[in-house]
Amino acid sequence: MFCEIVAGREPASIVFEDERTLTFLDHRPVTPGHLLVVPRAHAAYLAELDPEDGAELFRVGMRAAEALRASPLRCEGVNFHLADGEVAGQEVFHVHLHVIARFAGDGFGLRLPDDYRIRERADLDDAAANIREVWT
Amino acid sequence: MFCEIVAGREPASIVFEDERTLTFLDHRPVTPGHLLVVPRAHAAYLAELDPEDGAELFRVGMRAAEALRASPLRCEGVNFHLADGEVAGQEVFHVHLHVIARFAGDGFGLRLPDDYRIRERADLDDAAANIREVWT
Repeated sequence: MFCEIVAGREPASIVFEDERTLTFLDHRPVTPGHLLVVPRAHAAYLAELDPEDGAELFRVGMRAAEALRASPLRCEGVNFHLADGEVAGQEVFHVHLHVIARFAGDGFGLRLPDDYRIRERADLDDAAANIREVWT
Repeated sequence: MFCEIVAGREPASIVFEDERTLTFLDHRPVTPGHLLVVPRAHAAYLAELDPEDGAELFRVGMRAAEALRASPLRCEGVNFHLADGEVAGQEVFHVHLHVIARFAGDGFGLRLPDDYRIRERADLDDAAANIREVWT
């Protein structure tokens, strides 16, 4: 679907384009200033994304955040969010960075697990060792 | 607080370091593979962040996602999340990209507003025009 927008074959409310990315309004926004920044080159998942496209998503996301704060839309804060994989909430399988304008009482936020708490250093160190071992 | 970790004066379970960034376990993880990627250079908000540090946060986030998926930790998907401003949920005022390992039934997710629905194209176009006008 986002490839169709990139190709101009599907409508979108576009706010910015550059060589690597396209930024447009999410048609199902969680707040009125909810943008998606997508790479022009198709990548379903982070694992397929050119890291330089990823870098540009963040740079453009920063400019989007600045524009949202400067715009007449209500914006007292900003979230970046990205879902990689269905279990992470990914619904469109073309990488997209959500840039979301936030304001007090907007109804958007995170749902935290019941056992959300500070963990023992030893447990954190074990997890870190596990991750370091496979880091490339 | 993250400056203290960058300076090595506070403990952290570090998984990766490069010239611009540091990656370590969140001590209050939403799932067991919950990493934070932070810039070494202090920036409280996105507005103060060097865009090249931002670009590197994303590149490192991609590597972190790959490592989480390859690790023995349970990881069937990944979320990136970033909160800019208190109303967006920011609690530590040093920019940090959350990289969160996800699995079915992990209890983490998004809370959506009651009126979450697809919007009229005209309304989306109006918002886009407002944002384009102040984009720099």
